[in-house]
Order: sequence, then structure tokens, then C-alpha cells
Amino acid sequence: MTDPRPLFFGLYEQANVGNGAASASLWRHPADERLQAMALPFWLNLARIAEESRFDLFFFGDVLGIYDTYQDSAETALRWGVELPAHDPLMHIPALAAVTEHLAFGATISTTYEHPFGHARRQSTLDHLTGGRLAWNIVTSYLPSAARNFGLPEMLEHDQRYEVAEEFMAAVYALWEGSWADDAFVGDKQSGTFANPDRVRAVNHQGTHFATAGPHVSPPSPQRTPVLIQAGASPRGREFGATHAEIVFAGWSSTEAVQRGLASIRTRADELGRAGSEIRSVAGANVVVGKTHAQALEKLESYQQWHSLPAQLAAWAGWSGFDLSKYSDDEPVVGKTNHTQSAAPTNGARERPLTAGDLRRRYAKVEGNSHLFIGDPDEVADQIGEYASLAGIDGFLLHQFIAPGSVEDFAELVVPKLVERGLFRDDPPTGTLRSRIRDDGADRLPEGHPAARYRQTPRAPAPELPLLSA
Amino acid sequence: MTDPRPLFFGLYEQANVGNGAASASLWRHPADERLQAMALPFWLNLARIAEESRFDLFFFGDVLGIYDTYQDSAETALRWGVELPAHDPLMHIPALAAVTEHLAFGATISTTYEHPFGHARRQSTLDHLTGGRLAWNIVTSYLPSAARNFGLPEMLEHDQRYEVAEEFMAAVYALWEGSWADDAFVGDKQSGTFANPDRVRAVNHQGTHFATAGPHVSPPSPQRTPVLIQAGASPRGREFGATHAEIVFAGWSSTEAVQRGLASIRTRADELGRAGSEIRSVAGANVVVGKTHAQALEKLESYQQWHSLPAQLAAWAGWSGFDLSKYSDDEPVVGKTNHTQSAAPTNGARERPLTAGDLRRRYAKVEGNSHLFIGDPDEVADQIGEYASLAGIDGFLLHQFIAPGSVEDFAELVVPKLVERGLFRDDPPTGTLRSRIRDDGADRLPEGHPAARYRQTPRAPAPELPLLSA
Repeated sequence: MTDPRPLFFGLYEQANVGNGAASASLWRHPADERLQAMALPFWLNLARIAEESRFDLFFFGDVLGIYDTYQDSAETALRWGVELPAHDPLMHIPALAAVTEHLAFGATISTTYEHPFGHARRQSTLDHLTGGRLAWNIVTSYLPSAARNFGLPEMLEHDQRYEVAEEFMAAVYALWEGSWADDAFVGDKQSGTFANPDRVRAVNHQGTHFATAGPHVSPPSPQRTPVLIQAGASPRGREFGATHAEIVFAGWSSTEAVQRGLASIRTRADELGRAGSEIRSVAGANVVVGKTHAQALEKLESYQQWHSLPAQLAAWAGWSGFDLSKYSDDEPVVGKTNHTQSAAPTNGARERPLTAGDLRRRYAKVEGNSHLFIGDPDEVADQIGEYASLAGIDGFLLHQFIAPGSVEDFAELVVPKLVERGLFRDDPPTGTLRSRIRDDGADRLPEGHPAARYRQTPRAPAPELPLLSA
Repeated sequence: MTDPRPLFFGLYEQANVGNGAASASLWRHPADERLQAMALPFWLNLARIAEESRFDLFFFGDVLGIYDTYQDSAETALRWGVELPAHDPLMHIPALAAVTEHLAFGATISTTYEHPFGHARRQSTLDHLTGGRLAWNIVTSYLPSAARNFGLPEMLEHDQRYEVAEEFMAAVYALWEGSWADDAFVGDKQSGTFANPDRVRAVNHQGTHFATAGPHVSPPSPQRTPVLIQAGASPRGREFGATHAEIVFAGWSSTEAVQRGLASIRTRADELGRAGSEIRSVAGANVVVGKTHAQALEKLESYQQWHSLPAQLAAWAGWSGFDLSKYSDDEPVVGKTNHTQSAAPTNGARERPLTAGDLRRRYAKVEGNSHLFIGDPDEVADQIGEYASLAGIDGFLLHQFIAPGSVEDFAELVVPKLVERGLFRDDPPTGTLRSRIRDDGADRLPEGHPAARYRQTPRAPAPELPLLSA
């Protein structure tokens, strides 16, 4: 094994009170401040902690409707505040950017319910305002309640959502990469030349699902296209990731499965003309750390006291589309879920089919929902390094049981130990987010990426039709 | 006349470099910093100045496409940066809110290109994050280039846009006012009760142009519905304003015309069951102030040196839909424009029809585009008070020739004189924006407003269909 290089660390957040990604009911914990998450100070404080701790990324998950799969009702989600409120992450990022200099930001945004032009404009605005500290987690949305909120009587089928997503990408690439040449923006006060009109062009995207004329209304931003993150674990989702993603979530359950999954995505990316080795990977993780091992166990026990099984089952039912309340303990559940991200845990030994009872027992535990690193600072730092090495991943997104306590603990106790091991950067991240994750330090997407085909170059005129079909 | 009460002051901004609202080419002026307007520090500085000066509102205009009416081309707009970039105002407001405590924010958002659910979610998020410091300037969008950017081959007809707007309002009122009862949010850590599910309901809006199911994904924010601003000057636009607006723009050219226009809107509001006297009015204005009258004239002359007639004509052509380049100086133009806000100036005496030459001469002057108050500090304060009194308006939105110089001059030289005259608040504004503009200090819309009909009360069940038809 070569010398370790610093891992990539992000804070996983969601603009809600009942944060199912860790444990949906832990806003009840006496030390937790999530009930203040509808107001700005809660977020400014988190961003300052992440900035001071030299995190790379402040990441927002998102949902666009209330979880109403569990017991066919929104009652549990409303009662416990599961993934509620579902506030808009993009309304948070500019505020957090205003109080930070280096921290980058990522938001989960669906290709199913936005128009590409409005989305492209928002992201270009933010990439300018943040100086290139921007990532986009591309999702196609899995909640039936979200579809109904946006006026669709039924959710689009899974593969049709990806077909729409492919066309969405073609439209936004055309706006971000193709509309303004690199030398189109002039900004010369003396001559009064803002732009060279000859170097700005319409995009005239006319597709099946979207049309947009352009020109784009924003000169090239530091990164043009924000850093692209993707989490799909289905075959179609992995194909999409191999095509577009620069960072993928490693949502698989064992280090071997993570390695296999990443290898398959990278191989497919190579086949598509990209350099698969450039694709970075991160895994979600919870860290519970104390000054001693015993203290860490005490913390976990205090979290368990405020953990609610029904709240977590309502969250899981929303992710998976699968209502455990309808199954008795001994009924098998494998193959019945429609959403695999964090939603299809296996029993370790695979000796018998996973049952509803297995899942209920799993989610009855506060730590049932993601990788857990627990112990004293050295133990946790060792676990993190070992997992990253075995799974071959590039970093982690940390979930918080307790906000902001979990990230404060991590920053105070674990970061110094990771720095000692060469696993955490010891100087603040600088430059655009893309420049930090690429070996060549470039701000823009590389030539092999499909977005590059939309650029204004003599040798590769931009196609007028969507680049990819499903 | 009764004793004056403090006027309402807002800063009119747009997330661009070439700000046609004042003069599209003044980013060239040596003292101007607008060329930095794509980055965050420019905006944070402006917000801090507005906050320290005790402004009520930081207002953003917006456009969704490049101005390409003038000479049938986007060339002039690109060359001079007229209303470019067209960055998203909503991506700025959270950042400005993060560095201010009292200042309120308003953004121009179209009802033509957004889905009501996404819009309602963004505004609720922001109203929570800002503690009720939020206004929405409702527009239906007038640019053909915007329609093409959002995939419409042609712009919707003017009255059809208002029909869509009425249905849009019905959907967002249902989400903001009707979905969560006042007592639906509980937030009790001890019992783990986030909300009372019995007090949250779906909205099930099924209209001609939109559908949304709900429930809304956000508990009631301080104002629920943001303060509603509207500027339409057409008959249909005035009807919309009388129905919905809490603040209207007084875009008419003489104080008598302003008085007549406001009286007509207020009378119509009374007929619709609202209290017309509660509707506030603001006018756009430029202020050029020096320590002496002569210094003010020198400043205006220095602005004139950097003013570009073609740039301003490109801006005006975008607003009016009317390309002056096709008309000779003596050709009349009255009745040919399709957009009257700031776009149909009359010649004062009305002795002969307004000609293309009149407009070219007008827009050749840097001050051609809005009310101008000019002089030493006492002169300007007197002019402001006199205009407000004669026109019967409640306040002003100040445009800037030079950013941030114009607002700095106003804050340093004019505000103290206005305070002396009782025309400017001498303590910071507090509470929600709505509470500041209403005599009763309420945070929420009053009973007579159409939004109130969507509330959960035994006596007025919320209608399921759009409230108003065009």
C-alpha cells in the first residue's frame, strides 16, 4: 500500500429537524439543537464549525414531499417530524457561503421537477457567488408524494426518470459549457465591453422533455458545470453515474461490495471514454467518539434513549417505498424495495433471506442506518483509515446524531488523530471544489466528459440534440 | 396636511452589471464597482450599507432572458452588458440575510415559469430563515427571450399570463395559508411531537395550469405568505394589484397621475372586500446629492460622460417590446409599446404625440429613466418630501447610478436631513416586514385578503378550485 493521502470529508446535512439520515427522532435529545433548524443561526454555526475544521464539503440531501408510505399515511412523519420540514437546500447555501471562505457546498436537486434553464441559472449564479465552491447531487426523486406535489398524478417510472435526466443533462451542459466561449466575457471598463457577442451563442435545445433556446444569461463561472455527485445504485443509476458523476456515493454494505461496485462504475466510465480512475467515492458514516472508549459507548446509549423505531421506519419506508408495518417478523423482504440507497441492508452472513423482523431489529437501534465508527479518538481514526483502505474509497460524508455536537466532537477529537495519520488535510482547502478533487487541479471538466462535447471548439461542434438517449 | 410619518425606503437592485434601471452603461464609471457584481462581496457590502442606513427593503428586479428586441439582436445587450448577467436574485437573498438583522428582502419572481409548489417551498424556507423579512414582487414576465429559454415557442398573451398568475396565487395561498393550521406545529422535545397531524391537510389543487397535492412541507413561517408587491400598470395588471398587492409600484409620470392610479386601485380593492387604504405605494427614484448644489450637478455630469444611448435603448426596447431603431425622429410612438412600467413616458405638455426622437433625446440623458432628485442635502430632502406628499405615496425604491456610491451618498448626506423632517425612521426597523407596513402591526395577511379564504377555519372552508378566474 502507498502512503495514505488525505481523505475527502463532507458534512451530510438536510434542511430539516427530524433527520432520518442519522436518526429521525434525535432532535429530542437534550443536547441537540435541530429544533432550531428552521432559523438561520443554526446553519451559520454548523458552517463555521465545518469551515474551521477544514471540511471539504457541506452537503445537503433533500426530499420534495412528506413521507407517507409507512402505514399508508403521513401521520408518523408529521408526528415525529421525519425529514420535516423539507426546506429548500439552495436557500441555505448562499447564507453559508457568506460566512465561509473555503468550504464547498453541495445540494441535492432533482432533474424530474425543474426546468433545465432555471436550474442552470441558479447553479451558475451560485458558482459565481461562491467562487467555484459548488457541487450538485443529481437525483431523479423517488417519492410519490413529491410527484403529486408537482402535479403529476403518478411518479414517472424509474427508467423513464433517468431518460428525462439524460436529456436534462444535455440541456444544462449546453447552457453551462457551450453557450459562452472561454473568451466571450471581456469586462473592460475602458471600452465598455461586457462581452464579445460573436463568442456567445444560443443553444437551441429541442428535446422530448425540455426545450431551451439560450443564450445562457451568465458568463462562464469558475467551474462552469458544478462538481457532479451521484448516488444511484440501480443498474440504470450506475450507468448514469459512470457517464456523468465525478463523485459517487458508495452505498454498499461491505467493503468488498463497495470495491466491486466502484470497479464496475470505473470500468464502465473507461468504456464511455472517460478516465474511470478520476471518479471519486465517498461513504456515509456516523462517528461516535469519546475521550475514552467507555465515554463513546455512554454517548451511544444516550442517543438510543431518544431513538424512535416508528420514526425511523417511516423514514426508511420513504426511501425504500416499502412499508414494513404490513409484514410480520418472519416474512422475507429481499427484492421488494424500489430504492436501494441506504435501503437494502443485508444480513451479514446471507444464510437466510432478510426478514421484516431483521429490519425492525436493525432500525430499533440508533446506529442501524449507516456505518458506525465508535470509540476513543485513536480507535475511531484507525477505523476510518482501515475502512477507507479496505473499501478503496476517497472519503466520507459524516451524518450527525446530535447537531452540532457530533461534528464538534469529530472536529475536536478525531481530526487531530486523522491529521497525524496523514488522513486529513492540515491546511484549509483552497481553489474551486473541482480543482481539489482532480489530480490535475483543473477547474473545469476534462475533455473525456460528455459535457465537453458541448463546448465551442472548431473540432467538435456542439450537437443540437440531446447527446445521450436512455 | 397631517404631520409627516416616516416614508418607506428600499434599495432597488438587480443581480447584474449593466443595470438599465438607472443607466445600463454606468459600470464603466471609474467610481463604480458593479463589474464585481458577480461575486459575493459586492452584495454583502451593499446589504451592510442598507442595514446600517435603516433601509426597510433590499429589492431585486429580475429578467429571465437576454434583451434582444433592439435591432432584433442580442448584440447590444451582450456588448454593453445590459441587464447582464441575469443572475438569480433568490441566490443572493440568503447571503444578505446572513449579514443583516433587520433589513428585509424582496425578489421579483415570475408566475409564468415556475411551479407553484417549488416556489412556495422556496419562499417558506426563506421566510423562516429570515424571520419574516421577505417580500415577493409578482410578475408575469414580458420578455419573449425568457419564454424561449423556458421552452415556450411564443410568449403567452398578456391576459393569459394573468390568468395563469391568478391560478398560481390560488395554489400558493392554499399551501402557505391553508395546509397547516396555526396550532399544527408543536415542536415539543419532551413528547417528541413535531406537529399535530390532525391539523395538517393536503391542498389538492387541481387547476387548468397547475396541480399540487400538498401537504405543504413547511410549518407556518412568520408571515406565511410573503409581503406581496406588484407593478402591473395595464388594466389587467391593476386588477391583479387591487386583488393581491400589499405594496404597489407607482410608475406613473406625474404626481396627479400617480394619485389617480392609486385611488383607482384602492377603490377597486375596496370593492373586492379588502381595505384599499392598506395598500402601500412606492416610486422608483434616482438621487444625486452633493454637499453643495454645484457638486451634485458635477456628479450628474460625470455620470453623463459614461452613459451610452444604445445601451439604454436596448434596455428600454426589452421593457417596452418596442424597437426605436426602426423609427425616424419624427415618427409618433404612443400606443405602440406593450409594457408600460417605466416604458411609456409622455412629453410633459402633451401638445403633440410623443415621437421616437423625443424618446431618443430623453434616453440620451443619464437621468432619462426615472424620477431624479438632485441638489444639496436639504434640497433633496425637500424634493423627496414634496413629491411623496403631492403624489400621496408611502415611499421610494432608490436606483443607483453608481454602486455603492449612490446609496453611500444618500445614507451620509440625505438620511440625516430626512430624519430631521420626520421622513425617515430614526431607529432600526424590527419585526416582520408585514408588521412594519401595516397599521395594526400584524404579521399575517388580514381577513379581507383573498389568501385568507384558504385558511383552516370552521366558517370559511378553503375552496379546492382556483379562487379567481381572469
